[in-house]
Amino acid sequence: MLNKNIVNFIECNSEYEAANIVLYGAPFDSTTSFRPGTRFAPQTIRNESYGLETYSPYQNKDLTDIFVFDSGDLELPIGNTEMVLTAIEERAAEILKDNKIPFLIGGEHLVTLGAIRAAVKKYNNLNIIHIDAHADLRDDYLGVKLSHACVMRRCWELTGSGRIYQFGIRSGEKSEFLWANQGHTYMHPFSLNGLKETLEILKGKPIYLTVDLDVLDTSVFSGTGTPEPGGISFTDLMNSVIEICTLNEVIGCDVNELCPVYDQSGVSTAAACKIIREMLLSLSKTGGYNNG
Amino acid sequence: MLNKNIVNFIECNSEYEAANIVLYGAPFDSTTSFRPGTRFAPQTIRNESYGLETYSPYQNKDLTDIFVFDSGDLELPIGNTEMVLTAIEERAAEILKDNKIPFLIGGEHLVTLGAIRAAVKKYNNLNIIHIDAHADLRDDYLGVKLSHACVMRRCWELTGSGRIYQFGIRSGEKSEFLWANQGHTYMHPFSLNGLKETLEILKGKPIYLTVDLDVLDTSVFSGTGTPEPGGISFTDLMNSVIEICTLNEVIGCDVNELCPVYDQSGVSTAAACKIIREMLLSLSKTGGYNNG
Amino acid sequence: MLNKNIVNFIECNSEYEAANIVLYGAPFDSTTSFRPGTRFAPQTIRNESYGLETYSPYQNKDLTDIFVFDSGDLELPIGNTEMVLTAIEERAAEILKDNKIPFLIGGEHLVTLGAIRAAVKKYNNLNIIHIDAHADLRDDYLGVKLSHACVMRRCWELTGSGRIYQFGIRSGEKSEFLWANQGHTYMHPFSLNGLKETLEILKGKPIYLTVDLDVLDTSVFSGTGTPEPGGISFTDLMNSVIEICTLNEVIGCDVNELCPVYDQSGVSTAAACKIIREMLLSLSKTGGYNNG
Amino acid sequence: MLNKNIVNFIECNSEYEAANIVLYGAPFDSTTSFRPGTRFAPQTIRNESYGLETYSPYQNKDLTDIFVFDSGDLELPIGNTEMVLTAIEERAAEILKDNKIPFLIGGEHLVTLGAIRAAVKKYNNLNIIHIDAHADLRDDYLGVKLSHACVMRRCWELTGSGRIYQFGIRSGEKSEFLWANQGHTYMHPFSLNGLKETLEILKGKPIYLTVDLDVLDTSVFSGTGTPEPGGISFTDLMNSVIEICTLNEVIGCDVNELCPVYDQSGVSTAAACKIIREMLLSLSKTGGYNNG
Amino acid sequence: MLNKNIVNFIECNSEYEAANIVLYGAPFDSTTSFRPGTRFAPQTIRNESYGLETYSPYQNKDLTDIFVFDSGDLELPIGNTEMVLTAIEERAAEILKDNKIPFLIGGEHLVTLGAIRAAVKKYNNLNIIHIDAHADLRDDYLGVKLSHACVMRRCWELTGSGRIYQFGIRSGEKSEFLWANQGHTYMHPFSLNGLKETLEILKGKPIYLTVDLDVLDTSVFSGTGTPEPGGISFTDLMNSVIEICTLNEVIGCDVNELCPVYDQSGVSTAAACKIIREMLLSLSKTGGYNNG
Amino acid sequence: MLNKNIVNFIECNSEYEAANIVLYGAPFDSTTSFRPGTRFAPQTIRNESYGLETYSPYQNKDLTDIFVFDSGDLELPIGNTEMVLTAIEERAAEILKDNKIPFLIGGEHLVTLGAIRAAVKKYNNLNIIHIDAHADLRDDYLGVKLSHACVMRRCWELTGSGRIYQFGIRSGEKSEFLWANQGHTYMHPFSLNGLKETLEILKGKPIYLTVDLDVLDTSVFSGTGTPEPGGISFTDLMNSVIEICTLNEVIGCDVNELCPVYDQSGVSTAAACKIIREMLLSLSKTGGYNNG
Repeated sequence: MLNKNIVNFIECNSEYEAANIVLYGAPFDSTTSFRPGTRFAPQTIRNESYGLETYSPYQNKDLTDIFVFDSGDLELPIGNTEMVLTAIEERAAEILKDNKIPFLIGGEHLVTLGAIRAAVKKYNNLNIIHIDAHADLRDDYLGVKLSHACVMRRCWELTGSGRIYQFGIRSGEKSEFLWANQGHTYMHPFSLNGLKETLEILKGKPIYLTVDLDVLDTSVFSGTGTPEPGGISFTDLMNSVIEICTLNEVIGCDVNELCPVYDQSGVSTAAACKIIREMLLSLSKTGGYNNG
Repeated sequence: MLNKNIVNFIECNSEYEAANIVLYGAPFDSTTSFRPGTRFAPQTIRNESYGLETYSPYQNKDLTDIFVFDSGDLELPIGNTEMVLTAIEERAAEILKDNKIPFLIGGEHLVTLGAIRAAVKKYNNLNIIHIDAHADLRDDYLGVKLSHACVMRRCWELTGSGRIYQFGIRSGEKSEFLWANQGHTYMHPFSLNGLKETLEILKGKPIYLTVDLDVLDTSVFSGTGTPEPGGISFTDLMNSVIEICTLNEVIGCDVNELCPVYDQSGVSTAAACKIIREMLLSLSKTGGYNNG
Repeated sequence: MLNKNIVNFIECNSEYEAANIVLYGAPFDSTTSFRPGTRFAPQTIRNESYGLETYSPYQNKDLTDIFVFDSGDLELPIGNTEMVLTAIEERAAEILKDNKIPFLIGGEHLVTLGAIRAAVKKYNNLNIIHIDAHADLRDDYLGVKLSHACVMRRCWELTGSGRIYQFGIRSGEKSEFLWANQGHTYMHPFSLNGLKETLEILKGKPIYLTVDLDVLDTSVFSGTGTPEPGGISFTDLMNSVIEICTLNEVIGCDVNELCPVYDQSGVSTAAACKIIREMLLSLSKTGGYNNG
Repeated sequence: MLNKNIVNFIECNSEYEAANIVLYGAPFDSTTSFRPGTRFAPQTIRNESYGLETYSPYQNKDLTDIFVFDSGDLELPIGNTEMVLTAIEERAAEILKDNKIPFLIGGEHLVTLGAIRAAVKKYNNLNIIHIDAHADLRDDYLGVKLSHACVMRRCWELTGSGRIYQFGIRSGEKSEFLWANQGHTYMHPFSLNGLKETLEILKGKPIYLTVDLDVLDTSVFSGTGTPEPGGISFTDLMNSVIEICTLNEVIGCDVNELCPVYDQSGVSTAAACKIIREMLLSLSKTGGYNNG
Repeated sequence: MLNKNIVNFIECNSEYEAANIVLYGAPFDSTTSFRPGTRFAPQTIRNESYGLETYSPYQNKDLTDIFVFDSGDLELPIGNTEMVLTAIEERAAEILKDNKIPFLIGGEHLVTLGAIRAAVKKYNNLNIIHIDAHADLRDDYLGVKLSHACVMRRCWELTGSGRIYQFGIRSGEKSEFLWANQGHTYMHPFSLNGLKETLEILKGKPIYLTVDLDVLDTSVFSGTGTPEPGGISFTDLMNSVIEICTLNEVIGCDVNELCPVYDQSGVSTAAACKIIREMLLSLSKTGGYNNG
Repeated sequence: MLNKNIVNFIECNSEYEAANIVLYGAPFDSTTSFRPGTRFAPQTIRNESYGLETYSPYQNKDLTDIFVFDSGDLELPIGNTEMVLTAIEERAAEILKDNKIPFLIGGEHLVTLGAIRAAVKKYNNLNIIHIDAHADLRDDYLGVKLSHACVMRRCWELTGSGRIYQFGIRSGEKSEFLWANQGHTYMHPFSLNGLKETLEILKGKPIYLTVDLDVLDTSVFSGTGTPEPGGISFTDLMNSVIEICTLNEVIGCDVNELCPVYDQSGVSTAAACKIIREMLLSLSKTGGYNNG
């Protein structure tokens, strides 16, 4: 008898019970301020992940040796942001409840808010490491509070000041930089400098890692909605996410803002896939904070 | 002294007071169910309109001889559908108040709802001619009422039964076709057959014309979010919109659903531009119903 | 507990036992003579099928009401044509053995040979309806016998003369046209004229339908490896495949030669999806010849 | 010893002396008013011609049986229009002098002027059949006389009134249509209607055929600089050029305005190639007027 | 009453009188030797500038705080290079006359010649800083003197030897490098090394800055007509133009050679926009040399 | 009399007898495991090489001063890998026999095997420098031995252990890395570190250089079938191939895996062309090992 057509991120074919990491996709981009299309990222990432090997020579580890369950994409009610965030929160909460690490593939960056809502309910002292080209700290975007340009501001409302560590930021309104520097967040502009010190500070505290891939230089990641030249290198990002995800403290994470329609050559998608592979491999080492 | 950089649809450079037609763009696509990107249509249409001539050998008329004002694009709060529709309604209402014809360039098809809200307030016996590949008659889309898949259902809530004439429909849920045939709308599937009879019926009654360009065959209009093969020819659509817009009864209209990112060659945009040119030229003949 | 990520052609989610039609993909293009890339067609078709509705207003039938199992894509040993054909034949044979209709999505056209090998073993009086722009009757292509340019010649070696009915052919070597006209096949060049008579002749005899989508005009189907201007319209093809697949006699079929990388707008993929939907809906009426 | 890399339009590999038709390319687009890029057409056409067969089932003739020499592309001094036209004229004159048919592949349409300059020197009673979407009859374009928008006006200055027969025209300034109708040219707008009568009239008189491929509908020929929806079908154009080129009277011809960068799928190039193949095959029948 | 549709580079909406910098576009590419299309750069740059923020965290300055007037694009007589250069010169001269800084957005690099003609009339001791991948020092290109491959040679004819400082050059004919090294220009190949010393030398002397964006590495700027791998990084270019434009001595500048049609992802356009933003912000500090 | 249309890599127009380097293309991609299309690389490289100058400021050498013959592309029997390899081997053998350096332009990487078969017959102590992102050391790919994923394993079967020096490798199965490290090859992962020492070791021994261009970072070389982020810079690769090719010991070389269809902007092709130019210029210095 023939099998059903199961499509996972390459070799993430563990059974749910056995997995300590669970992938879920949020194909959403309705609040995107400039060029939409990130909704197709999770599907494209799964499909193109087969251009990669399962083995990482950087970490000498292999996806075939770890336990990841791919739960596919949420079916989201496009057009109603609140309902979308609720669906994301519920999926994240279910995974957290089962003491697994929720690994979200966006979609635009606002999807992070759904995951953070679930995470702060479980970890009331949650910290966020935010790697991005954009500050995402606006209070509203043309009057809209639930916008991808405001997502870290909304997260801050849940975590409070001093819990969000931002890296690589090279774009925003003047007021966003001012607000950050008033003690609301720890902002490290332009690069990943300061990461090591941050990880020292966060020892023993729950960490959620959110990666907006547009932090990468446009040369290596052109397939995104709001490209911002002058970013960090692929190797820098890869090494940093490995460094972070290797920690037991990471209890959830996401990777966002690949926009496949602007990635004619597929290399932005390949970059997303490789970052995800390296994150999965380093996360799997420990099973995450909650199992510590 | 140098001039400011005013960008209009080709030669639509009348002063507002002198114009009897007013263009306005609604760069919105947040409820798009499949592939977003129509927000860039109005800007792209203006830019590419310069590949056309102002003269139509079909009508022997010239844009340089008529009076059209291009009011540019609305600045829309992406992410909040209700606020977006209000902004569209207000612009349409202002134009109608001044006894001019509002000519809306979308964006996704939901933008029509904003214009219809304004139009029914002025014309309580409004009729709608709806040319489209899709029925757009769902009551909701995954629970969302304000979706481009529901726009004609929402319009029907404003006009009541027997006021919407649909042409070219070749896609929808079974329930949409059933609902239409229960007397809610007049549906003419697959083609523009029946248009002449419809125009007879509508003599003397105010008409709003809404054109979803995906009614065109995918061969001639590939640049759209939800392409549906098997559509009508460019010439058929052009002749029909000329026939409709020549009537004094037309009090407003819109053209929607060009998605430039899927139009690498630009020919879908050229088709949109030419349809708009021919509509403008035929509308201008009379100045529209309200001046009759 | 979360579900696995099953990806089917839209709503083809029947259980295998309940299904009377079984989809299977053959992502193969290694013998393509001009522009390769059809290997990505089955995956792309599944993904993009969600831009269609499940309901067909042409047939007033709905994919949600019929029973189709999607068995996904074969994992093919790219680089060894004979091994690839064996894998296809085995899958087809298994489906035929269970008295279901194998519905193959290519890939290049050579994949048909695998399916025909299985079909002629079950139906030794098999007939083939071949709809294509190209004759595919070469004895070899630069010395290679297993080439997509030779597939109908190879099939003829299995069926014998007078069993292959070709439609829409508008390209080939002079010798191919001569060979066909020597009584080897029934060739109907340029169009689908003669289909009705053919179906009369084939009454009561097992039919395999193979559709090379490049039979469509390049205006409606540009995303293919060897585009040939001057083809048939989408509506003509759709009506013909409905007419054929409605017959009890059809015991298997395939749809080939979509090359997604040349389909920037996605409308060729949409055409493929819609042809497949209409074929599935008409095939399902009867369950196919073997259940007659 | 190895051979040099000779690249011809498919199988146009006759020796110069034996040939009665000579291909030459003019990679020029500097006066293009809208979107440039046609300079790459001749090279692209040669490369992609290998996706076609040499045999035409329409004419039952084969490129391998006729005698065509491909002299490659002129090296043109981009930026100096007059020098460019001189280079084209010289090549055309050399071919005409040797009693062969010059077959020019543009480039933008202005290149025709170079060829016509040579042709009128040999045939002072030259007639031109002009198939195009655009009238190309402006006296100047923003003050520039040597523009592709003026090419037929410049040709008229060489031939005089009543010698230019225009077909398919669906775009131009009002003044161009007026000027044509004042007896300067015979204009057949929108279609090829009237061709048969024209060919009757031209019996026994030398004919130059210039084909601007944008006469084709944008559905079948999107890869051009100034796309104009609402054109003629591929089959209509193919049949007409066969009808014309079969005549002994044709002493030269050209095919223009393919712009490869807007032809992502390659089907516009394929259309150009097939039109050229059919023209070559029908021209070859007689060897052209000058040998009559 | 509704407003006209004014389209500026993001927030460059000062009144002309108040502005000390004036943008003007030259949509010209007719002498481009390889791949044309830069004519669409100024329009595309304006449109896509809205993907950027107005605030620069690099300079801690904001476009909303400075005074720039965007005068739109010149309407250029494509096909007549001399007329085109005259139009550019006139616009530049008018801006210079009003003691404002003319900021030209090309188009191909030849447009610089028009601006330099105006600048040397006002500043007879003008110096040029030329940042480019190509030397642009040919005396002619296939006999054409007014070619983008010759633009710095033509400028040298106006300034004399020892006034042109070239940086980043990595391509040219051997003779161009020889000619430069004979004392005609100061050439700094491959990088921006030597810039600091140059700026020392130029203290107190009027400087015109011309930036050919193809100096950037092809990884970060693929959307250009003649891509040359092995270039400088975005950050290096950004820092250098800030360093230069901060000087009072800069009396005019231009940014050239974005070719949007080869920039499918839009990141080359984003790079152009960001370079322009940083130049505007640093220029505005002082109002330029003439106000010193 | 007009000339035939000879198309060479820019200015590689030496006569065969005079040349000491001979270019030949192998348009083959049938064993490509992921995204095919490299078959169009040699043709595209020739066409686009005209965007480069013949002069290298890096080496101060000019293609017009050296002697290279371009023998064009092999006509390969697509679909039969063994026949393809034989054709490549024969061409390489003929060039080697004439004491010239065969310079192969692929195609996928498996083409190297054909050239190596010829080279080891002439040089039984052949060494291979292999620059690549991928190890290419699998014993088979889904049972297929002749696959581009296995090419260096197949070469090893010809040279034996300790003769293959691999650089830049950042992808492979775990088993490939293990196998390499068991003494079969010298693997230098991630970078070109170790090249200098390798060249010391290889002094006086025949070297074949094979360059898989996907060793370049995806930012600079996105146009390839299996993109792998995190690669080396263009300048690093350029400098290294110059260093290698300057040696008398190099007796043959190849450059592979450009896939033009994923290179919309053309910059990957430009990178390939420039690498080839620099290799040709450095190879020409000595005429190669066999003439030493």
